[in-house]
Amino acid sequence: MLISDVSNNGLSLLSETRCFGGTQKRFSHQSDSLNGEAVFSVFLPPESTPVFGVVLWLSGLTCNDQNFVTKAGAQRTAAELGLIIVCPDTSPRGDEVANDDAYDLGQGAGFYVDSTQAPWKTHYQMFTYINVELMDIIKSVFSKGKKIAISGHSMGGHGALISALKATEHYVSVSAFSPIVNPSKCPWGQKALSTYLGNNSAAWQAYDACELLNAMTEDFTLPILIDQGKDDEFLDSQCLTTPIEAVSNLSNVDVRYQDGYDHSYYFVTSFIEEHLQFHAKYLAQ
Amino acid sequence: MLISDVSNNGLSLLSETRCFGGTQKRFSHQSDSLNGEAVFSVFLPPESTPVFGVVLWLSGLTCNDQNFVTKAGAQRTAAELGLIIVCPDTSPRGDEVANDDAYDLGQGAGFYVDSTQAPWKTHYQMFTYINVELMDIIKSVFSKGKKIAISGHSMGGHGALISALKATEHYVSVSAFSPIVNPSKCPWGQKALSTYLGNNSAAWQAYDACELLNAMTEDFTLPILIDQGKDDEFLDSQCLTTPIEAVSNLSNVDVRYQDGYDHSYYFVTSFIEEHLQFHAKYLAQ
Repeated sequence: MLISDVSNNGLSLLSETRCFGGTQKRFSHQSDSLNGEAVFSVFLPPESTPVFGVVLWLSGLTCNDQNFVTKAGAQRTAAELGLIIVCPDTSPRGDEVANDDAYDLGQGAGFYVDSTQAPWKTHYQMFTYINVELMDIIKSVFSKGKKIAISGHSMGGHGALISALKATEHYVSVSAFSPIVNPSKCPWGQKALSTYLGNNSAAWQAYDACELLNAMTEDFTLPILIDQGKDDEFLDSQCLTTPIEAVSNLSNVDVRYQDGYDHSYYFVTSFIEEHLQFHAKYLAQ
Repeated sequence: MLISDVSNNGLSLLSETRCFGGTQKRFSHQSDSLNGEAVFSVFLPPESTPVFGVVLWLSGLTCNDQNFVTKAGAQRTAAELGLIIVCPDTSPRGDEVANDDAYDLGQGAGFYVDSTQAPWKTHYQMFTYINVELMDIIKSVFSKGKKIAISGHSMGGHGALISALKATEHYVSVSAFSPIVNPSKCPWGQKALSTYLGNNSAAWQAYDACELLNAMTEDFTLPILIDQGKDDEFLDSQCLTTPIEAVSNLSNVDVRYQDGYDHSYYFVTSFIEEHLQFHAKYLAQ
């Protein structure tokens, strides 16, 4: 349902729905970096609530821009605090976009990297999309000079961490649920990185949070909050969270292991209020 | 994923997930009234929180037992208050169960009535399933003597109201979001009631909240809370909420029209805390 034509900011409003007194919107736009149409969702707090800041949310494998919007219940706290929440898709989309039948490669599995390998590189430029193109839209259309934090889940937790590590100037804080912190050492990451970047270990390290941190000559001081469920079925097999604790030059980090929680959005919804409160501390500064 | 075999209460545990310190479970069981397997979901508050009462939730057209569980965000308040939330499916299911290609008839659209018409009557006995069979399970397995309230959305709001009107002894309060209050006068209801009950207006009236209320010789005193979005696309066309205000023998009712809200789960999630708090008042008495 297209409810408005392309406005002068280049965004087409696909839908808008009242939620907790604010508005949940969905936009499409022509993306230069993804070389096609892209869709993202934005929650705007009630007009009566002053905008306090922006949280950019990156979702995990198989997700699009809607999973967090419909399942995380974040609008309640965002409405209270005055937070804008921006949720992009997890990959380029479309019939003309390279794909794979597996759930962990291709559409829905962009891994937030800029691909260098055919046929993927034509559209799979997710790092640039998030940290340049979408960032420009956030700053020119939505944030009105307010600060920006980043968060995500699983593959999106990886995306949030590498965005904060590589495009630090945009963010005041980063948090993640069950993030893939060391993708070059786990099956999900090895499959995606070899496909999108080729068999070049230096290229992989440029998108691996643990490797980026290990290569730093100074402490990384951006505040980091990580929540990890102890009953997460992927905890041991997919480089979720634990390897980041072995990184020595990492300060200002809080890694929490939560009893009984798994890898699902039931985990995200249980702690999203605490993550938004965490970011609000730094958005206010 | 069947994670436990049939226990001595006849329930098979399909899944369980930690959520807000409690547990979101999903069960299947052999249903006598539906003449086949039925699935329902149950949220149990944290073990450290004393159980305060039960809220039975009925969903709307196209839904199953999962829509409310994944989208409404009710577990947060339920965990705080100590509420058990039970979410059944909206119809019988299975290859052997009569169906229709339309979204508003057949599987996913049981309308909470006991069908009298072939081929539907073999399985479509949702009123008895909810108010007798599932009620017995709630009382014998989950509620441990605590009181029960009922709520629902759209077709499920209709189901909650007729359950409270016809099986009043089970419930302490009823609430609804955008309920179909007068199904014999609207297209959704006329299609479903004529199909499941035949062209017998007396049979329709027995499952129509407004007609049941009009036929009552005494005031219906069970507390009722109804929320209706003013921007609901079905408000005028599908007998949502407004006709119930014309019922004269209705006391103890609070009908609220909410500016800007539509028919979606974004509306439900925005006000579910208030509904659970409403029920908690009566569950405590």
